[in-house]
Amino acid sequence: MTPREQAVAARAAGQTLRNLPSRKRASLLRRVGSALEANASRILAANQQDLRDAEGVLSDALTARLGLNLAKIESLADGIRSLSEMPEPIGRVLRQTQLADGLDLEQITSPLGVLLVIFESRPDALPQVASLALRSGNGLILKGGKEAARTNRTLHEVITGALRPDVAADVIGLVETREEVSDLLALDDVIDLVIPRGSNAMVRHIQENTRIPVLGHADGICHVFVDAAADPDMARAIAIDAKTDYPAACNAMETLLIHADYANPQGLIAALEDAGVKVHRGPEARGFEYGELACSVQTVADLDAAIDHIHQFGSGHTECIVTSDAESAASFLDRVDSACVFHNASTRFADGYRFGLGAEVGISTSRIHARGPVGVEGLLTTRWRLSGSGDTVAPFSAGEREFTHKTK
Amino acid sequence: MTPREQAVAARAAGQTLRNLPSRKRASLLRRVGSALEANASRILAANQQDLRDAEGVLSDALTARLGLNLAKIESLADGIRSLSEMPEPIGRVLRQTQLADGLDLEQITSPLGVLLVIFESRPDALPQVASLALRSGNGLILKGGKEAARTNRTLHEVITGALRPDVAADVIGLVETREEVSDLLALDDVIDLVIPRGSNAMVRHIQENTRIPVLGHADGICHVFVDAAADPDMARAIAIDAKTDYPAACNAMETLLIHADYANPQGLIAALEDAGVKVHRGPEARGFEYGELACSVQTVADLDAAIDHIHQFGSGHTECIVTSDAESAASFLDRVDSACVFHNASTRFADGYRFGLGAEVGISTSRIHARGPVGVEGLLTTRWRLSGSGDTVAPFSAGEREFTHKTK
Repeated sequence: MTPREQAVAARAAGQTLRNLPSRKRASLLRRVGSALEANASRILAANQQDLRDAEGVLSDALTARLGLNLAKIESLADGIRSLSEMPEPIGRVLRQTQLADGLDLEQITSPLGVLLVIFESRPDALPQVASLALRSGNGLILKGGKEAARTNRTLHEVITGALRPDVAADVIGLVETREEVSDLLALDDVIDLVIPRGSNAMVRHIQENTRIPVLGHADGICHVFVDAAADPDMARAIAIDAKTDYPAACNAMETLLIHADYANPQGLIAALEDAGVKVHRGPEARGFEYGELACSVQTVADLDAAIDHIHQFGSGHTECIVTSDAESAASFLDRVDSACVFHNASTRFADGYRFGLGAEVGISTSRIHARGPVGVEGLLTTRWRLSGSGDTVAPFSAGEREFTHKTK
Repeated sequence: MTPREQAVAARAAGQTLRNLPSRKRASLLRRVGSALEANASRILAANQQDLRDAEGVLSDALTARLGLNLAKIESLADGIRSLSEMPEPIGRVLRQTQLADGLDLEQITSPLGVLLVIFESRPDALPQVASLALRSGNGLILKGGKEAARTNRTLHEVITGALRPDVAADVIGLVETREEVSDLLALDDVIDLVIPRGSNAMVRHIQENTRIPVLGHADGICHVFVDAAADPDMARAIAIDAKTDYPAACNAMETLLIHADYANPQGLIAALEDAGVKVHRGPEARGFEYGELACSVQTVADLDAAIDHIHQFGSGHTECIVTSDAESAASFLDRVDSACVFHNASTRFADGYRFGLGAEVGISTSRIHARGPVGVEGLLTTRWRLSGSGDTVAPFSAGEREFTHKTK
């Protein structure tokens, strides 16, 4: 099949999927979860081959992301089953208005259509994204990293195999080459949303080469602001967790802002260094790479200066204030214009699973459509449904009928 | 000011606006409404000059759209005042989840930032869009049609004058040249959403020339499907209203689909012709321009064929089924994938004011972010706000703490 044929087939199969009864769609997800477990040895064998090919080619960090094991497969299956237990996301009524006597309007959730998701080396993204697409009634085309090609192919086979005979395997397409991705990016008449999960450069490249809307999942430049009124133990614990729990994550702290009146900045910095963090200050701070076990530290005069710094240098992902002052906390949460704003909690909580969304397709730093961790809801659109009994607008224009606009 | 300086100033003034107390923002809107009425003679004088310049240059239809009068200004002012009475849209809590004991998450509505709205000859769009931006706490840059340049300049002066001294006039910028628009379309670091209101060609041109998300407001190719089980009087009334109430509107009927078993198709067509509609059938149907007092008619074998026709030839705007059969109606409303799907009601109801949204910035045929008539809600994004007491993720990974994920 050509990329266009794949996308058109995904759209058609997606229509079958969304027209299934809600229970049936939920049971498909349970079947996918069971199939992953039943085929675990096949999946792990393919993964072993990918890992062997990667030896000496990929860095240790990338190899670690590539590897699957039985526990990971079981936890993926669990996640998919818990997604099946969530309330039905399609057809949810968001708004009900009586426009006039006998004329009733509803705004309801609907699938987007066809999604194109491009992800890098981590193969566990494939079952997560596939199950979110199934839950939300969307067709899907996936492009994974080439290091994980065998694992991805096996996962794809197992998942689409579990959908038969209710939904055609075409509902989830898998492509493997950049040329196919280029072709797909031209299909703005068939594909409704592109979700690139990867480097800023990759996201930028895609934005510049498609008319399809792009849900930007870019690196985060997350800040922790330690206020003058911060509890020192809390500041230490949050800064260390935000930086060291997973330094390469997009929700890891990159910059620590310290209020000029904070009592013991040196103690805080020393604690980070004791935890293995390389701390960069002043002009030197420009030199380090985000995602390392390193961060920059900046002293700021006050809350306003901290917020200005975040707006100037941040990426609008996740920012935290550590303070015991309720007023400063409220002001920070109100005024900082990032997808996630936290008070006395580690930036690492910015995650679909931790937020209770079941799973995530990525963390969006876009401001439109979906922002922050994106679960099923970010893969839906809405439709307006109006039921009348022969109503026309002419009598309203003529003043013979009046709108009531009653919210139900 | 350069276009970049204008956009940056609109962003800064937008921040002032959204940090005002809710009551204050509502009172600003009331001031804008009163200022329009108090300056009506000035506005109408500018409009008269624009109309004089347009004589012999613009078509009668365009001239009609360009003209303002006292009643229009009063109705604009009324609309703005009713917008001021709507519940506060900023900071609305959409979701509340207890992630774990003492760790509370909220998803709240927030302004998008800066909007760029490009509209054509109708100057009444300016106060409507300006008031929606003010209500939603956004900065705004407007580009109007050059035929309405004097009217737009006067409206802009009156509106921004009414905001002083609480918000800088920069919160709403006005540009007049295409070159300025080109410059603005490059500012994806400052402008968050572009809303073009105009021809398909204009919307397409903008989509191809910016990385800023575009809220597509394109022509509608709306269908009315008269089912076998349609009441003939109702079918006639709806088809005539949908076509003749305002033929140039994007929610006017362009294609009438008639079920092959409908009793009296000739009577229906004759009624449309009696109402002055030119009816095109078969191959000839390709030749006419959408927006005229004309429509194409197509016989379809059944409901499935009607839905296929709509998906193949429609623009995803608004479609209506006329039927007394509840099952057919439900199937049509479920399966037709357009922004608005209506049962026994004219397509002309697809409108922000008629939907009870207060006003509209346009009707979106995009599938992401906002779909259908776009009011204040389409000009908002969301933020996630998390409040803890020193919480870190490490104890959750170590199994010492557990997520509760209780929805509140």
